[in-house]
This record gives sequence, structure tokens and C-alpha cells, in this order.
Amino acid sequence: MTGHGGNIHKASQLTGIRLNRIFDFSASINPLGVPKSAALAIKSGIGLLPHYPEPFADSLSSFIARHYSLQAGSVICGNGSTELIYLPARFLKPKKILITAPTFSEYEKACNSSNGKLQVVSYNLQRENNFDIDPDSYIQAMKGGLHSPLFTSHSSRPVDMAFLCNPNNPTGRLLERESVLKIAAAAKKAKCYLIVDEAFMDFCPDETVVKHVSRNPYLIVLRSLTKFYALAGLRIGFGVFPQKIAAAIKKQKEPWTVNCLADTVAKTVLEDSAYSAKSLETIRREKRFLETGFERLGIKYIPSSANYYLVNMKNAQKVIRDLAGKGILVRDCSNFPGLGRTYIRLAVRTRRENEMLLKELAGLCQA
Amino acid sequence: MTGHGGNIHKASQLTGIRLNRIFDFSASINPLGVPKSAALAIKSGIGLLPHYPEPFADSLSSFIARHYSLQAGSVICGNGSTELIYLPARFLKPKKILITAPTFSEYEKACNSSNGKLQVVSYNLQRENNFDIDPDSYIQAMKGGLHSPLFTSHSSRPVDMAFLCNPNNPTGRLLERESVLKIAAAAKKAKCYLIVDEAFMDFCPDETVVKHVSRNPYLIVLRSLTKFYALAGLRIGFGVFPQKIAAAIKKQKEPWTVNCLADTVAKTVLEDSAYSAKSLETIRREKRFLETGFERLGIKYIPSSANYYLVNMKNAQKVIRDLAGKGILVRDCSNFPGLGRTYIRLAVRTRRENEMLLKELAGLCQA
Repeated sequence: MTGHGGNIHKASQLTGIRLNRIFDFSASINPLGVPKSAALAIKSGIGLLPHYPEPFADSLSSFIARHYSLQAGSVICGNGSTELIYLPARFLKPKKILITAPTFSEYEKACNSSNGKLQVVSYNLQRENNFDIDPDSYIQAMKGGLHSPLFTSHSSRPVDMAFLCNPNNPTGRLLERESVLKIAAAAKKAKCYLIVDEAFMDFCPDETVVKHVSRNPYLIVLRSLTKFYALAGLRIGFGVFPQKIAAAIKKQKEPWTVNCLADTVAKTVLEDSAYSAKSLETIRREKRFLETGFERLGIKYIPSSANYYLVNMKNAQKVIRDLAGKGILVRDCSNFPGLGRTYIRLAVRTRRENEMLLKELAGLCQA
Repeated sequence: MTGHGGNIHKASQLTGIRLNRIFDFSASINPLGVPKSAALAIKSGIGLLPHYPEPFADSLSSFIARHYSLQAGSVICGNGSTELIYLPARFLKPKKILITAPTFSEYEKACNSSNGKLQVVSYNLQRENNFDIDPDSYIQAMKGGLHSPLFTSHSSRPVDMAFLCNPNNPTGRLLERESVLKIAAAAKKAKCYLIVDEAFMDFCPDETVVKHVSRNPYLIVLRSLTKFYALAGLRIGFGVFPQKIAAAIKKQKEPWTVNCLADTVAKTVLEDSAYSAKSLETIRREKRFLETGFERLGIKYIPSSANYYLVNMKNAQKVIRDLAGKGILVRDCSNFPGLGRTYIRLAVRTRRENEMLLKELAGLCQA
């Protein structure tokens, strides 16, 4: 068990509720569902399935480089952004890493699986501060600072790989671009690779630092297409790497990790500006709706730049159980380091689903 | 460039011939194409794409274990059998490996990418002997034998991982089950992991050793669903591992590598016995047709247990070029160690395509 959200298969097995009757607030996926353009691309792509995909998805990589005005040769496509998290861990072999707590658990797992003696410095985000990062103390930790109120390191060896999830999962907090660039500049100076995971950046697209990779040989930016385009099941993401690193990784990485349907769908949805505009508008409207609902019910939530909220409820564990009994899946955050048993992550869904969730939460808040 | 067959995308770019006008004899894929049952499963699976796949494809693993009567917990599903080649290399970290020459190039690449100081013993298959393995000398090489007419090792350190591709790619030669089991027993004694890649075993299904994994903690068997079921673009394969190794790998490996469509299609096609029977019958008939044609044209071929032939033609390089100009893609085997510039691998295709190939070859043989 990985302890991630979105395992509706397991939830269905446990509750006996059929897959398509489960309301999944536990995975942070665009509620508009699969773009029509993607469904069409899949149907017309079936005939090509007997053929291998391109070994390293070169035409998709070039397409993405053009789409985001990036250097040719800097993009590596992968089997979801998960593959892109494991690739730098595997090929750059960090010895000491810096990660925030809480954050997505795969960063540490990826580095651990490449190095059994990994040292991990945990930068502890504070509830009082909305779980925001203080760039200066983050930089201090990166440079090998030994301790501060926010982190403790057991050696003064400098960190050689640092992870920033931006907006952060599960808090939804955005570190604004200028602060990310300040950290990236310090990383370059300290010769520490900075991996910025922008899996949820499509929900606040102006804040990406993807174009800055070309000027910083220690900056790597990861992107996912599965959250914004509701394609988690299809597996497609990409990473933007300094060119030399991209070339070295491509030389050694396993081929054919991007399936043909993911390849063709990615090219299609990146040009589907109607879906993109409708999604941003829907998410904006539904976030207002949910926030008003949380406030009415007195539920404490962290203001979010992404399509999910971290909420804090005293009786979170009972809430999670009771909702599950009704086929409503939410993300229990108790296995995120730095969060206790009172935190839940809730995705922004359709109006009908959000109304249902608020109605159920109302019953549970009174209980 | 990986130098594999099946890169119709690159061929299309180079020749200007459209993808769907290329006749691909370079990848060894079932000519019947995508099973109808698979196409239906894909279409009805589109609605589930917003959801993550199961992290480790547990229900598919159980399905496969039941289907082949294997121990529960011994199956790991992957993003094509390629992922299953890289997983043991990564987690068992071999220091010295034994591979045949020629064989599929990813075995050595996978082990090299996990260990820069890898020692490789090459077991040289002989043309005079139809490129067949002699089990006794293969075992001798595995145990750390220094040299024989068939292999040379630069140290007497015993081999800790050996690869057998069975039937072998690109020769199509099957090592019969009793010989594989003899080698597997010797591997167990020598504490050397034996990876048997049965990617093409569906074409001679009675010869699999998949059920023997449960009795041998050093035997690992890899299977692919992409050749027999013409789904190379969808990426699905599985490995059968000793249970302890399977558990250890699952604990560390990256999640979500099997996409939802591959997962549902795999469950569907494994029960599509009509497609399976029709495929075996078609391949048998077309192999007879091609062999008769080769003999008529005086083309030397290696008798094959799989759905492809290794042929030897003096003017192979010209043949490859001339065929490519007509949109017929074949596999130039000159980058397989142990084969020269005169070898070509040809997949078994439909009658219409095979007729066309033989017609073109006739012209080129006379030239």
C-alpha cells in the first residue's frame, strides 16, 4: 500500500460500492473529466497500438518544447510525472536531500530506493504560517545549516538535491515565482539540484519557472498532464532538465515508457484551449463555492492555489470513515509527516458533488 | 536512437511515407492486429481515465497468477516487459552477467545503467549450430569458467545474473524446456539469478517454465502481452519472481507504471481464446508460406519457434535500403553482437504482406 489518494479500486473492494458509484475527493483531478478531444484521440489511436511507441517520445518532447518555448533537447517525457521523480534520483544519486514536511511522499521514496544511506533533512512547514516556506531558512538548510527552528540536520554536509512541490501537495500553497527563483539561484551557487515539481501548476499557470531551466544547470522542473487534463489513468508527464543532464539520462533510461495513446493524447490536449479555459473557470467558481461552505460550517481550511484544500477537523478520522461508508472518498493526511490525524485533503469537484460533500460534512460537524 | 526494430515513426520521418502506409516487418508483432475485445475494452475504459491506476496493478497481478496457476504474490506487472528487465537489474544489482550473443540488447543496457563497473560474459552462439545454446557450456560460463570455444571471461568470479531470451531474439531459436530447467537448477546451485525472458513464448506456449519459479529462488521469468496480442503501443508485461524478491521490489519500485487501459485490456485479452487460437493457426500457416518462399528464392533462414525469421543475405544492406524505399521496414541486425552486416530479421505478417515481401525479395535476389 502506498498510502496515496485516489485508490478507488481499493476503496471499492473495501466498501463493496461499485467503482463508478464512488465520489473521489481523495485524488486532485480536474472534475470536468477526460477532455472530449482526448477521448476522440484515443479512439482513433487504437489502430496504431500494434506499433511500438517512439523509444523516447522524441516528437512529443519536441512538441512540448515548442509549446512552452523551451530549449529543444531539454524535455524528457515519462510514464506520469512519477517516472520523472525517480529519474533524477536514480541518475544524479543524491546523498543528502532536503524536503518539506508535509509534501508528496514519492520524493523521499525515490531517493531512498537509489541510496540506502540517504540523509534526509526535513524542512518543517508551520501551521501558524499556513504551511508556507520561508525562502531564507530553506536556503540555509540547503547550504548545510545544522539547525534552526524549522529544520534539523545531523551533518554539515551540504544538501545535494532539494525538492519543492509548487503548489505544495497536500497544502495547496504556492511559493511565488520570485521566491522559487531566489532558491534556484542559491541552489546553483551551492551546486545542489533543485527539483521543482509543478504537477499542479496548470491551475496557476503564470507562476511556472519552467523557462528558467535553460539558465540554471541545477534546476529541474517536473510537470504532469494527468491532474489538469483528468488523465491520471493514462500516465503522462514531463520533466524539463538542463540539456546535458537530459542527454545523459536519455542515454541510460529505459525506452518506451510513454504509451502511444498517452503520446497522441498529450499532443491533443495541450492544444485544447477551450477545455483549459473552461477548467480554470470551473475550478475558480467551485473553489469560491467550497470556501463559502467551509466558512459557513466553521471548517478550518488552508487557502489554496491548486484544485484541493487541506482542512483541519478535530473528528477527521470519524469524518473519513463516515464519508467512506457513503461512497465519498477523501484523503486522510495522517501519513504525511508534519500533519496529525486531524487533517484531510479534499479535491474540488463538480457543483453537484461539492454540494453533496458539504451536506454530508454539515451532518458530521454537528455530530 | 536505441537501434531496435519497430520505430515506424522514425522510418516515416526519414522516408516521408505516412505511418499507416508503412509495412512493418521490423517489429515482431502479431499480424492479426489489436484484438476486437481489446478495442472494446479501451473504448469502455476511457471514462475511468481520470482515476489513478492501482499503484501496483494488484488485481491484474492476481488475475495473471490465477490464469497461469502461479503463486499469489509472485507476479509483478510492468510498463511492458522492458520495465521487468530493468527491475531485477536495479534491485539485485548484478556485478557480473552472462548473456548470449546475439540477443535482445536491453539486458546489458539495464545492468549497465545500474552498475558502471559491470562485467559482461558473452556466450557466443554459433551460426553452424543454428545459434543454439549448449546448456553444459552455458552452465560452465555461469559458474565462472574462464574460457571455452564459446565464451571468454576476464575473471573467475562467478556470474551473479544470467539472461536467457527464449525463444531467442533475433534468432527465433527455442531452448527446450528440459534444457532451461537444467540451467535453472545449476543457477540455483551457483546462487546466480537466471532471468528467462519469454516475451515470444505465447507462440510456443507449452515450453514455458513459468510454473517452476515457485520451486527455484533464483529463477525469474518475464512475459510480454505486447507481441502476441499486438499491443506494443499500450505497454503491458509481467514478471514472475520468487515471492521474497517480488515483495522486496514492490516495496521500492515506482507506483502506477501500468496504465488503466493496459490493465483492463490485459484482463480481457488473456481470456480471448478465439483470438489466441486464430493467431496460432495464422502464424503457423504464414510461417509455412514464408519458408516455402525463402527456399524457392534460395534465401538462407534460421528455423524459428517464434513469429519472425533471421535470414542471411549477402546483399542485406542493399535489400534493407531498397525495401525501405518502398515503405517496407525490416530489422537490420548488424548492431546485434555476433551478427554481421548480412543478417535481417523478418516478422511474419499477413498473407498479403508476406506475398508482397517475397515478391520484392525476389527482385532483389536476382539483382
